[in-house]
Amino acid sequence: MTFDDHDLRPGEIALPFNPAERPADAGLVFIGRIRTPWQRRADCPRNGKGNRTLCTVEVDADYRPGLRSVETCSHLYLLYWMHQARRDLIVQTPAFAGVAHGCFALRTPVRPNPVALSVVELVDVRADGLVVRGLDCLDNTPLLDIKPYFAGTDSVPEARVGWREDLERQANTETDRDKP
Amino acid sequence: MTFDDHDLRPGEIALPFNPAERPADAGLVFIGRIRTPWQRRADCPRNGKGNRTLCTVEVDADYRPGLRSVETCSHLYLLYWMHQARRDLIVQTPAFAGVAHGCFALRTPVRPNPVALSVVELVDVRADGLVVRGLDCLDNTPLLDIKPYFAGTDSVPEARVGWREDLERQANTETDRDKP
Repeated sequence: MTFDDHDLRPGEIALPFNPAERPADAGLVFIGRIRTPWQRRADCPRNGKGNRTLCTVEVDADYRPGLRSVETCSHLYLLYWMHQARRDLIVQTPAFAGVAHGCFALRTPVRPNPVALSVVELVDVRADGLVVRGLDCLDNTPLLDIKPYFAGTDSVPEARVGWREDLERQANTETDRDKP
Repeated sequence: MTFDDHDLRPGEIALPFNPAERPADAGLVFIGRIRTPWQRRADCPRNGKGNRTLCTVEVDADYRPGLRSVETCSHLYLLYWMHQARRDLIVQTPAFAGVAHGCFALRTPVRPNPVALSVVELVDVRADGLVVRGLDCLDNTPLLDIKPYFAGTDSVPEARVGWREDLERQANTETDRDKP
């Protein structure tokens, strides 16, 4: 059972197969676990940035030498495996959007390869891992990778996501309309 | 044989096992291929941003419905599988750095899970995929995922990577020293 295992909403499209049941083209190893206060999907904050909750990233002993120099980074990418997400919904209708979008235009955990990425602020480096801010994932989420965040290549302040801007514009219009 | 399969450089540390030979904790499916002009590692640009080369992202037919609304995004994350990278070097001494850093402080393809991420500018959406700018990977690199880039959560212009700043400072000092 997965927490996303719902019937299809209007407009949603499932793949004709489940990627989780296909022979894998490549294999991942879990290198640790992310510890957060959120035990159920419904408890998770809507997105990481803006919430100041401290979370810990436990890195398995074999992989800890890989943390050398990470303490010099202010921000990191974490890649992790959304282990509870179904993988076969290729077009989805998020409740907040009301219309259907392709999974590649969404940051939903439900996607053919449920690898999530988050930009986090590094708060502390401990013997067994990291303390960070900016996560919104479930407790015990398997960790795949940690990468340094380079502002020169990774920061694009002018980036736009049109479908979400449309949604915000629509919400503002509705608010205006409700004014007396 | 892998293109990164060199003897250990001074300071480098290998894991006591090869993650590629471990039973996988999770399996990935390749959803397409990235087509670039670079056939050999030595031909690849040093990093994607700043180079204006157009690359194409071929998405396999089954997954193309997932592209709906991607055309409204100005920038995307691409996740891809560095299929030629070895996975067992946990501390590495990049030629440009001269000192050893953990793989999690580096963007090297050599890491326990060789999943690369790049921020790209979306130039065009075609029936079978995307045209983008900002990649530096080998031709035929397997594609894992496409995600929208949200400036509000993904852009951190103030992010710092201390070990690289030290390196740049050192390079500048050496240049100063060489002045007549």
